[in-house]
Amino acid sequence: VALTSERYGVRRLPFSRVSCGDVAFFERLLPGRVLTGAEELELFNVDWLRSVRGSSKLLLKPQTVAEVSQVLRYCYERNLAVNPQGGNTGLVGGSVPVFDEIILSTVLMNQVISFDEVSGILVCQAGCILENLSQYVEEKGFVMPLDLGAKGSCHIGGNVATNAGGLRLLRYGSLRGTVLGLEVVLADGSVLDCLASLRKDNTGYDLKQLFIGSEGTLGVITAVSILCPQKPKAVNLAFLGCQSFAQVLNTFTTCRAMLGEILSAFEFMDDKCMELVEQHLKLSKPVTGCPFYVLIETSGSNSTHDEEKLSNFLERAMTSGLVTDGTVATDEKKIKASHRFTILRSMLWSLRERITEALTHEGYVYKYDISLPVGKLYDLVTDTRARLGRCAKNVVGYGHLGDGNLHLNITADSYSHSLLDAIEPFVYEWTARCNGSISAEHGLGFKKKCFIHYSKPKEAVLLMQRFKAMLDPKGILNPYKTLPSSS
Amino acid sequence: VALTSERYGVRRLPFSRVSCGDVAFFERLLPGRVLTGAEELELFNVDWLRSVRGSSKLLLKPQTVAEVSQVLRYCYERNLAVNPQGGNTGLVGGSVPVFDEIILSTVLMNQVISFDEVSGILVCQAGCILENLSQYVEEKGFVMPLDLGAKGSCHIGGNVATNAGGLRLLRYGSLRGTVLGLEVVLADGSVLDCLASLRKDNTGYDLKQLFIGSEGTLGVITAVSILCPQKPKAVNLAFLGCQSFAQVLNTFTTCRAMLGEILSAFEFMDDKCMELVEQHLKLSKPVTGCPFYVLIETSGSNSTHDEEKLSNFLERAMTSGLVTDGTVATDEKKIKASHRFTILRSMLWSLRERITEALTHEGYVYKYDISLPVGKLYDLVTDTRARLGRCAKNVVGYGHLGDGNLHLNITADSYSHSLLDAIEPFVYEWTARCNGSISAEHGLGFKKKCFIHYSKPKEAVLLMQRFKAMLDPKGILNPYKTLPSSS
Repeated sequence: VALTSERYGVRRLPFSRVSCGDVAFFERLLPGRVLTGAEELELFNVDWLRSVRGSSKLLLKPQTVAEVSQVLRYCYERNLAVNPQGGNTGLVGGSVPVFDEIILSTVLMNQVISFDEVSGILVCQAGCILENLSQYVEEKGFVMPLDLGAKGSCHIGGNVATNAGGLRLLRYGSLRGTVLGLEVVLADGSVLDCLASLRKDNTGYDLKQLFIGSEGTLGVITAVSILCPQKPKAVNLAFLGCQSFAQVLNTFTTCRAMLGEILSAFEFMDDKCMELVEQHLKLSKPVTGCPFYVLIETSGSNSTHDEEKLSNFLERAMTSGLVTDGTVATDEKKIKASHRFTILRSMLWSLRERITEALTHEGYVYKYDISLPVGKLYDLVTDTRARLGRCAKNVVGYGHLGDGNLHLNITADSYSHSLLDAIEPFVYEWTARCNGSISAEHGLGFKKKCFIHYSKPKEAVLLMQRFKAMLDPKGILNPYKTLPSSS
Repeated sequence: VALTSERYGVRRLPFSRVSCGDVAFFERLLPGRVLTGAEELELFNVDWLRSVRGSSKLLLKPQTVAEVSQVLRYCYERNLAVNPQGGNTGLVGGSVPVFDEIILSTVLMNQVISFDEVSGILVCQAGCILENLSQYVEEKGFVMPLDLGAKGSCHIGGNVATNAGGLRLLRYGSLRGTVLGLEVVLADGSVLDCLASLRKDNTGYDLKQLFIGSEGTLGVITAVSILCPQKPKAVNLAFLGCQSFAQVLNTFTTCRAMLGEILSAFEFMDDKCMELVEQHLKLSKPVTGCPFYVLIETSGSNSTHDEEKLSNFLERAMTSGLVTDGTVATDEKKIKASHRFTILRSMLWSLRERITEALTHEGYVYKYDISLPVGKLYDLVTDTRARLGRCAKNVVGYGHLGDGNLHLNITADSYSHSLLDAIEPFVYEWTARCNGSISAEHGLGFKKKCFIHYSKPKEAVLLMQRFKAMLDPKGILNPYKTLPSSS
């Protein structure tokens, strides 16, 4: 992987360089929790997609908010840049250093602080892995309000810092509603304790919101309070094939009306995605021969009612020709309708969740995460495919249709400037014409920060830059990310 | 009503006073939409509770964001203080001037800008009345994600500015999740257009969140984009009596488990509330002889399923002795269980929604809006009642039990300093000991701003003050509200 600074031609800002004295200080502060070896740091300098690479020579693993505070106070005084890092599963180059920023990892901040079994409010440290939290709360009859493909390694603090969306947003809403409190360390080391555990609190401005989605540029999230919904008693899945995108849209409208409050996911993917998942990961899909597939999940409190709703919907979808073929996985393994059955729920979810992974096997992946009016969602894929022709290996589309969120991915054997130039700003201009967002859920990180103007007016960007300057006057927190430079 | 400045002994800040030249300027800018008569201004100088009174001599009624911008640019240059006002239904003295602030009313900004019938996204001006919006979207098969007693007069802009909670929060979550975009005019007249109509947008910091719940102190909200859920096909209500607060809590837990995703409201009220509603408003409750009552609402997509769930729950609640007696209002007027029936749904809701109004008939009302762990919710009422003894006319408790939100109200024939001293800071200290919030949904406004420290650490308050100073350096927007003075 090429160094980010070389590939993108960025210039290092005049931060101090880490000295032996600095390393000695950190080794006293965090004994045995300081990494300096180039090989050990490799994993943390390169992103999961292997698309960007920094050259940090120092990684710190604090365990407590007090340690994070001491680290930042020191870095602030010394003018040392810091790259806060969770599970390093980000997709826009926000989670790794660009140059030699000190990596501040939350990997050892993995304690659950409290869980209230009446209210379902979980308080935990920022480095808890999402899947571990899921298991923890599920044993107590609750679920995490978010779920995403990277759950096995992403940290809850990183999820909040990027305002992760994922597979349950359709049902449980965004983190802006479910995150009840945060503990944050600011650039100068001061600690902001807004770790309330209340569903409602209107005392003053809601400061925590500024840190949700700020990608570590305004403060380091050290703990999170989050509202967990009750675990549904019944979860059903349906994997269906559609003959056109218009049918996908009709299926969604029908489904939303007939499944109502139990609809918990409506994902779509094109045939090419499924082909790559089969080819690279040896997963086989239960339905074939369609240009589009949808994955529908219901979550509810009464399995009989839920299966009846799902059955009625499937009956309608099949008889009206919206859906060509389908497979259903229910808790009870006994749903009756004119389609085949399977109980392999996790296999069905894998077909959707592992698309990202399958794409990485193709070589280099140009990733776009776009919000659009749902009716226009797939036009962007068609237009991009037509524009790029044979310059691209594959142009695929999938995503959270229920949220108007398209993942447009373009693959090539390796990175090339000329292909990038053919894609950008084309994709951004197309999106801006539809008043869409150039980043629905991935954030801006390093790769997208210069394109913020396609989705935000300049007054808004200027105000963001003023917030950044106020909270981090030396700009040491995750530099080169999220916002274009203000000069 | 006594002048706020006299009753509370506040000092006017050195803003300019409105001159004849100022009035002439505004009359040219907003011809026929400038009020200066003392009598005409009375309604806008006094709050709905008749508990605070300002002495503004000028009210402006802009119709467009451009006009709001011109008004604020002028006021900013002239150092004139401004009180943004929606429907003036606030309960903490945030919606009326304290001294002679110019009242900037959104009353003529009442246009729907757009409604997308696929996504349910409504974009409208800030002065739209909530009930009108409800009717508008209901005709199109959607509902507003919030509902509150003041719906007939409150403005959506004011709802957002106070981060109103209300009766549907349990189901549809807070405005922080459902408000998708805002258009805001800042203190200096610049316009911030963050009126996106997308469910997901992670491009930069979410600036709109800072204005949600800022009570007009950081900017004037001129338009709102909000996500409306689908209108439920079936809505059922149950009004039940419980013999103790412990039974109320048990009923809630049982209900949450058995009604699951269709539970849309769980309100409680003590017997004294119901007595006052009967006495002052001549409403009669359908169940009698219990110290506590609960109002449960279900909203779902299948009336047969919903009624079956409700029936099962009621059967369980009655047979296990959780509930003594009850009345049910269903769409189908045919639910069968061991209880009486009525179809008077609006009558049932009135019993809960009109408590606030009934209380005003008692004389002066000391209002507290507290978030607490749900198990301790009613202890605060009992303790306050014991503390005040015969000094208070009535001490009542009701509220959004499902959200852990208690409305504690204390009535007396008229306002008295000594009774206030007996209540405050007692109630706040009690709340702080339980890590509760001293304002769950009403905001801080004028009356509660000095008590913010009971729910927020000083670092957080300092940071809020820095945001205020950055966005409104002259402090002209809704002065004397939300935050204690920073000196």
